Amino acid sequence: MWRLYQFPLCPFSRKVRLLLSEKGVGYELWRENPWDASDEFWALNPAGRTPVLYDPERRLALSDSRAICEYFEETVDKAPMINGTASNRAEIRRLVALFDENFFGDVTMPLLHERMKKRLVLRQPPDSRILREAMKLAHGHLDYIDWLIDNRTWLAGATMSLADLAAAAQISVADYLGGIDWAGHEQTRGWYSVFKSRPSFRPLLSERMEVIQPPRHYAELDV
Amino acid sequence: MWRLYQFPLCPFSRKVRLLLSEKGVGYELWRENPWDASDEFWALNPAGRTPVLYDPERRLALSDSRAICEYFEETVDKAPMINGTASNRAEIRRLVALFDENFFGDVTMPLLHERMKKRLVLRQPPDSRILREAMKLAHGHLDYIDWLIDNRTWLAGATMSLADLAAAAQISVADYLGGIDWAGHEQTRGWYSVFKSRPSFRPLLSERMEVIQPPRHYAELDV
Repeated sequence: MWRLYQFPLCPFSRKVRLLLSEKGVGYELWRENPWDASDEFWALNPAGRTPVLYDPERRLALSDSRAICEYFEETVDKAPMINGTASNRAEIRRLVALFDENFFGDVTMPLLHERMKKRLVLRQPPDSRILREAMKLAHGHLDYIDWLIDNRTWLAGATMSLADLAAAAQISVADYLGGIDWAGHEQTRGWYSVFKSRPSFRPLLSERMEVIQPPRHYAELDV
Repeated sequence: MWRLYQFPLCPFSRKVRLLLSEKGVGYELWRENPWDASDEFWALNPAGRTPVLYDPERRLALSDSRAICEYFEETVDKAPMINGTASNRAEIRRLVALFDENFFGDVTMPLLHERMKKRLVLRQPPDSRILREAMKLAHGHLDYIDWLIDNRTWLAGATMSLADLAAAAQISVADYLGGIDWAGHEQTRGWYSVFKSRPSFRPLLSERMEVIQPPRHYAELDV
């Protein structure tokens, strides 16, 4: 069985977990903290980042979350997530990159640093100026998602795609860390609450990262 | 004809240009500086980053360099660059991400900030401590490429792939900015000099970015 090296608040591991679950691929969770990755982990992935998916029987290690998603898209027919014409597929991949890079860099990464790494590793208080800036940038990203949902059923078009999984993964980590103010984002909230009720999403919402507690609305389905 | 929005030292635009040229796809260069992107450009790409490829006749805009490369891999049969079994393709995509994210973040991005943005926009001297750190990290990346070339003909396996284009694109920008010390990296140097002589690479090597001059060896084929 595949081993997924991850930690509960890794948004890229969450994206991969959503994909594996939607496609019905089984895996075991192996915990790997980003601040003290093991030698074994570095040997599996010279980039030193989660997620890594490893099949011990075949000695096959996959890393980089987009490469992992493309691999399962190519090898498992169920629940296609990079689908349609070449332009549709380019739009899906554009949005995945937007959430993986821009949303992550603007919102998720600073929240993880201030509210996870400082608390669990550095033993420092969070910098409220950086938190405010991340929450402000989150509004801009949610505005863009609102606009997408005004114009499309799902983020990249008529069907659910990897773009939805990538966005939900980033938003869920940001929401866990108290970085999402849902006021004024009815479209995104509606899309996200449909997502939260999916069987693929439920296990993620029930996990906790040590002493860090999410806000009360985090795992509720109707909020 | 496709318009490629780029600037001469954008490593992601260079990767796309190498791919388009290998595949025989024509395009026009449109200059877009990252520090003062036009409204027209933001409308084409909400992520605000080069490269963007735009077809005015079809009003089709493609952005994110990996999404662009996948699009042409799917639509143009010539010179396949994400080829082989699903595992081979995962290995190609893993390496592309390693160069696009780790090499870029460790080496190319700090060099661009210190030697391009500070010179052309901020009018500040470069920080020599940051330059030394970027060059030190470049050695680590070249060590890894040396190791790949010890074990494979091309970076991801037996044939040239998008991994080679991604690595050459990053290295060429870092080399232009004086960030690559080639001493001790014979394997990488051999691989790179083969690359520099390809028709797809020659136009890149002859371009200059305003007043910034590359070191003398930059465009020479036998160095």
